[in-house]
Amino acid sequence: MTVEIIEKANQFIRRSPFNRWLGMTCIGANTKSIVLTIKWREELISSPELRSTHGGVLAALIDCAADYAVAVQVGHPVPTMDLRVDYHRIAKPGDLRAEGKIISLGKRFATAEARVFDDGDNLVASGRGLYLIRAPEAPAQGSAASSN
Amino acid sequence: MTVEIIEKANQFIRRSPFNRWLGMTCIGANTKSIVLTIKWREELISSPELRSTHGGVLAALIDCAADYAVAVQVGHPVPTMDLRVDYHRIAKPGDLRAEGKIISLGKRFATAEARVFDDGDNLVASGRGLYLIRAPEAPAQGSAASSN
Amino acid sequence: MTVEIIEKANQFIRRSPFNRWLGMTCIGANTKSIVLTIKWREELISSPELRSTHGGVLAALIDCAADYAVAVQVGHPVPTMDLRVDYHRIAKPGDLRAEGKIISLGKRFATAEARVFDDGDNLVASGRGLYLIRAPEAPAQGSAASSN
Amino acid sequence: MTVEIIEKANQFIRRSPFNRWLGMTCIGANTKSIVLTIKWREELISSPELRSTHGGVLAALIDCAADYAVAVQVGHPVPTMDLRVDYHRIAKPGDLRAEGKIISLGKRFATAEARVFDDGDNLVASGRGLYLIRAPEAPAQGSAASSN
Repeated sequence: MTVEIIEKANQFIRRSPFNRWLGMTCIGANTKSIVLTIKWREELISSPELRSTHGGVLAALIDCAADYAVAVQVGHPVPTMDLRVDYHRIAKPGDLRAEGKIISLGKRFATAEARVFDDGDNLVASGRGLYLIRAPEAPAQGSAASSN
Repeated sequence: MTVEIIEKANQFIRRSPFNRWLGMTCIGANTKSIVLTIKWREELISSPELRSTHGGVLAALIDCAADYAVAVQVGHPVPTMDLRVDYHRIAKPGDLRAEGKIISLGKRFATAEARVFDDGDNLVASGRGLYLIRAPEAPAQGSAASSN
Repeated sequence: MTVEIIEKANQFIRRSPFNRWLGMTCIGANTKSIVLTIKWREELISSPELRSTHGGVLAALIDCAADYAVAVQVGHPVPTMDLRVDYHRIAKPGDLRAEGKIISLGKRFATAEARVFDDGDNLVASGRGLYLIRAPEAPAQGSAASSN
Repeated sequence: MTVEIIEKANQFIRRSPFNRWLGMTCIGANTKSIVLTIKWREELISSPELRSTHGGVLAALIDCAADYAVAVQVGHPVPTMDLRVDYHRIAKPGDLRAEGKIISLGKRFATAEARVFDDGDNLVASGRGLYLIRAPEAPAQGSAASSN
């Protein structure tokens, strides 16, 4: 069953060219949470001196981990309504791991959170988002894009 | 003077490999606000059917526009403490423009906001962030990365 | 017309016992924004030394100003989905004024922002929220929905 | 030790007239989290039909639970920099319980989260905030009030 959730998550993930560019993969999951990783690459850098990973990349990872934690439960992609990201420390070069978890799952909306760890297991960022749950027959939407 | 602010913003922007990958450029500025653009590219896509731009890319653009609106005023890069992003509608393929504006500028912290428009001038996303203002002599930090 | 919007806002405001306890009144409005005030009272204090107004009170005021900016446009109360509040400086004893403004108004959701000023016209707090627009006949309430 | 943390939290809580008006009490704590309650009263109502508790009251409770989770650890009040609140369902009349927990504790800043439950143990709201940690010798600040 865990294997099936991971496979479903990776199907959602691989659909997105941006996720593929980030080397995003789901490596763990259960009915409440999901674990994603992204591959470090030179183009992710923000400050050349610190070689820190860009905050937008961390935001993308948090959004995806929270989003797919919901999506694998409801069985279809869920658009992001809004997102909060907290930056706790610089993400040095190295692959990143994110754990996404559902906070509240209703019929129409879900709130989910995520934490990002560097390869030394330090918490570098965290956040939460609101996701729109649609009936599967409604026009499918991509992750992280909502329309009013 | 406006030209000097634009030039300063572009110096900050071009330092970051991720910003360069996004094709980010400052095209306008005054003492309170700044205008950035990014170049659309296939790798920015989230949903292959909708060809929507990934929410993480919109988050990066909002963070940078708000961040650099502050940075050009204080004269040095300012780390992002936290960020909120609201997604209003799908960003279809096409270059994006973001307007960043200072809400509150103190001695230690600044709050700034940004709005992102598609090439048809529709508001696709908006948000705000908290930025840490450091004394120039403090160890410089990259954009969008804070340390406790 | 402005008078009608103000009157409509005050009808919404006065329905709430908490708003009445805060002495909340709408004193200005147009098709895009709204101005509310609350009366200072001893019970609003957070720190007894600083005599600062409690952050929860500022959050309530921001939520209401953003919410009613939407509500007067759509003609019925709109539940808050989520809220962000930024605290810029201490709110000293004195009445507070909040300006709420619509950022994005769709068919199902609206994003709106608000700024709070003290009686010396200093910006003390600001924020934004996501509001659920319902048809008045819709069953009131679902998951992820608070109502002011 | 737990008793000492609870006592310390209640000392912080009782200093604030607004907290006292809410009937706020700390009823549980350990080194990572804290549990607060507030007493329901008629003046907390938002919608007279739904008899729902006002979103600003829930925001105040979330802010306090997250804030005091940090404050009891560092030994002094910590001003709120910013706050996010998610509303999951209507809070019907009845006392409310909030659990606050530290997400990240640094030398200068802390991020903490909180969840609010009604008296039937339903999650009604949740959120997170950024808190400023000051050296004890710095001028003390009240809860939930930051200055730039």
